[in-house]
Amino acid sequence: TQTYLITLLPGDGIGPEIMAVAVEVLEVVAKQEGLSFEFTTALIGGAAIEATGEPLPAATLDACKQSDGVLLAAIGGYQWDNLPRHLRPETGLLGLRAGLGLFANLRPAAILPQLIDASTLKREVVEGVDIMVVRELTGGVYFGEPKGIFTTETGEKRGVNTMAYTESEIDRIAKVGFETAQKRTKKLCSVDKANVLEVSQLWRDRVTAMAKDYPDVELTHMYVDNAAMQLVRAPKQFDTIVTSNLFGDILSDAAAMLTGSIGMLPSASLGATGLGVFEPVHGSAPDIAGQDKANPLAQVLSTAMLLRYGLHQPKAADRIESAVLKVLDLGYRTGDIMSAGMTAVGCREMGRVLIEAL
Amino acid sequence: TQTYLITLLPGDGIGPEIMAVAVEVLEVVAKQEGLSFEFTTALIGGAAIEATGEPLPAATLDACKQSDGVLLAAIGGYQWDNLPRHLRPETGLLGLRAGLGLFANLRPAAILPQLIDASTLKREVVEGVDIMVVRELTGGVYFGEPKGIFTTETGEKRGVNTMAYTESEIDRIAKVGFETAQKRTKKLCSVDKANVLEVSQLWRDRVTAMAKDYPDVELTHMYVDNAAMQLVRAPKQFDTIVTSNLFGDILSDAAAMLTGSIGMLPSASLGATGLGVFEPVHGSAPDIAGQDKANPLAQVLSTAMLLRYGLHQPKAADRIESAVLKVLDLGYRTGDIMSAGMTAVGCREMGRVLIEAL
Ligand SMILES: CC(C)[C@H](C(=O)O)[C@@H](O)C(=O)O
Ligand SMILES: CC(C)[C@H](C(=O)O)[C@@H](O)C(=O)O
Repeated sequence: TQTYLITLLPGDGIGPEIMAVAVEVLEVVAKQEGLSFEFTTALIGGAAIEATGEPLPAATLDACKQSDGVLLAAIGGYQWDNLPRHLRPETGLLGLRAGLGLFANLRPAAILPQLIDASTLKREVVEGVDIMVVRELTGGVYFGEPKGIFTTETGEKRGVNTMAYTESEIDRIAKVGFETAQKRTKKLCSVDKANVLEVSQLWRDRVTAMAKDYPDVELTHMYVDNAAMQLVRAPKQFDTIVTSNLFGDILSDAAAMLTGSIGMLPSASLGATGLGVFEPVHGSAPDIAGQDKANPLAQVLSTAMLLRYGLHQPKAADRIESAVLKVLDLGYRTGDIMSAGMTAVGCREMGRVLIEAL
Repeated sequence: TQTYLITLLPGDGIGPEIMAVAVEVLEVVAKQEGLSFEFTTALIGGAAIEATGEPLPAATLDACKQSDGVLLAAIGGYQWDNLPRHLRPETGLLGLRAGLGLFANLRPAAILPQLIDASTLKREVVEGVDIMVVRELTGGVYFGEPKGIFTTETGEKRGVNTMAYTESEIDRIAKVGFETAQKRTKKLCSVDKANVLEVSQLWRDRVTAMAKDYPDVELTHMYVDNAAMQLVRAPKQFDTIVTSNLFGDILSDAAAMLTGSIGMLPSASLGATGLGVFEPVHGSAPDIAGQDKANPLAQVLSTAMLLRYGLHQPKAADRIESAVLKVLDLGYRTGDIMSAGMTAVGCREMGRVLIEAL
């Protein structure tokens, strides 16, 4: 049997705790499905800054490149918030995305019937919501040049970033959008600000042109301000959303919060080579780090995404996803998703019941 | 008595209908408060394109400049969506903002007890929400240069916009943010993306520096993705939000939709000279235009903002706001805010009961 090389990037805060649970789960599923994994752990974010002075050591990027898939937990913490930009945890994350060419970020936001009451929205508004945000991840204003803080002729400082996309950058993410929609309900909504921004106009033109290759997909366009409204007003109208880096950052978080339980949401970042990074949507939660309080389920579901999208092992992915639903059905809840009548568990205990469920 | 010159820009779609109601209301309040108004109507948006070939004729900008305040209704419609950019209704609006130097946009989003059930969020989450978004309106990626669609060395097209702010642009809007917070609950949240964008880093540095001039205001900072989440998760945590043009566009719409009734929300766009433009947050709703179905209350409340922020006539503004609450208490509702047991009225009828209430 093939051995998959997996790089683990536990990062900061609750990262190591939730990663430990995910690895245990993966090992059990490996035995069940006859798969073989070899793990390498590498440094990123604040942990890497402390150990090596930089948020993304070359050794980490190399390890990732040599592996078949990367599991990332979370990065960041207050103690690194005021470092110069090139030394910040986030810069490590952006470097990882760029270094591995991960231009497509898939962020599902689906309401689980077991957790529907966690939503701040009314039950009838969110029941059945199942949105996939396809976010461009290596372009746009996150990476555009020129950028920096410059001095104008009058001697004032001027902060500058460049929001830019080339046709080929738009085409490759639009393709992921259409193909994702094809596997779902065949509805694709492209979000832009084409009424104001030239970069969005090019985006809209290219996405529109590509639609003829996907006659089975129903394409709509929406301005980003309206999309933010519509997510609150009537989220069920959306299936797959494709959008640029910054708009995807904002809208995928808004969509995630519709569920009320972002401790449950995984994500996948994919490139052209098939190598992907899989990580929870939530952050490193430094306030509860090391207290065995974290919810490991988003990390576990990220492992399922690794199996499904990275390693093409859908059966193993299904097993994990079913186990997660089962522990929820059995009433186990970490603090972030706790509600009356349920059984409160810590991070490790959640791992234990998951393995039982497997 | 002084005569105020008011320029009316009814624009497109439902614009003329709701403007007619607002003007009637203003005339009644004028009599009651001993104020005198002179109105000039000018063209903007699609209506201006049809009549003159451009979305913001010079005559319109001149009329606005010579007046004491501008009431705008709404612009846009499907028939102008595919015109070249310089001929689009939105371009007229952006030209008006730039031409009058309206750098500060105030967008309140408050839950009215009478309409709380219109919200898609649970009552306990939105009860008492009262947010003021202070959005920068003449800078950032909306206006930054260079912008356009260029051809790269490899012959592909590249869409480019520039997200930029100078120190003085940041300072003048931050000042409006602090002063607005001072008049409210003294809590100001500045929203940016300083973990990624240099322009946001300069923004955060300047806002932080200004805080020492407002020791009574509690300043916090939040990343825009988190702000989009927190508006859904726990909107009551916010009082005044100050942010850049694009982030304000997105977040003010998300905040507006928390109320569930954007047909109720006014806005004010202010500059250094005291001249302001006052307009509803909602759009031109071409689908119901000319059918006497539109909700005129956001336009009427925009008139109250004109009186309060533009003409410094708080008593007249109070009168209008009280009348709006009164007609709601009496159970009058246009279609967009209709609910069981209330009295359905059209646009004109809503105007009539408003005047009765005055
Ligand atoms: C941490 C930050 C750089 C990052 C982003 O903005 O992309 C995060 O918000 C995310 O969405 O993954
Ligand atoms: C119509 C459009 C140009 C405008 C904007 O983006 O500013 C609108 O969305 C608004 O918020 O006033």
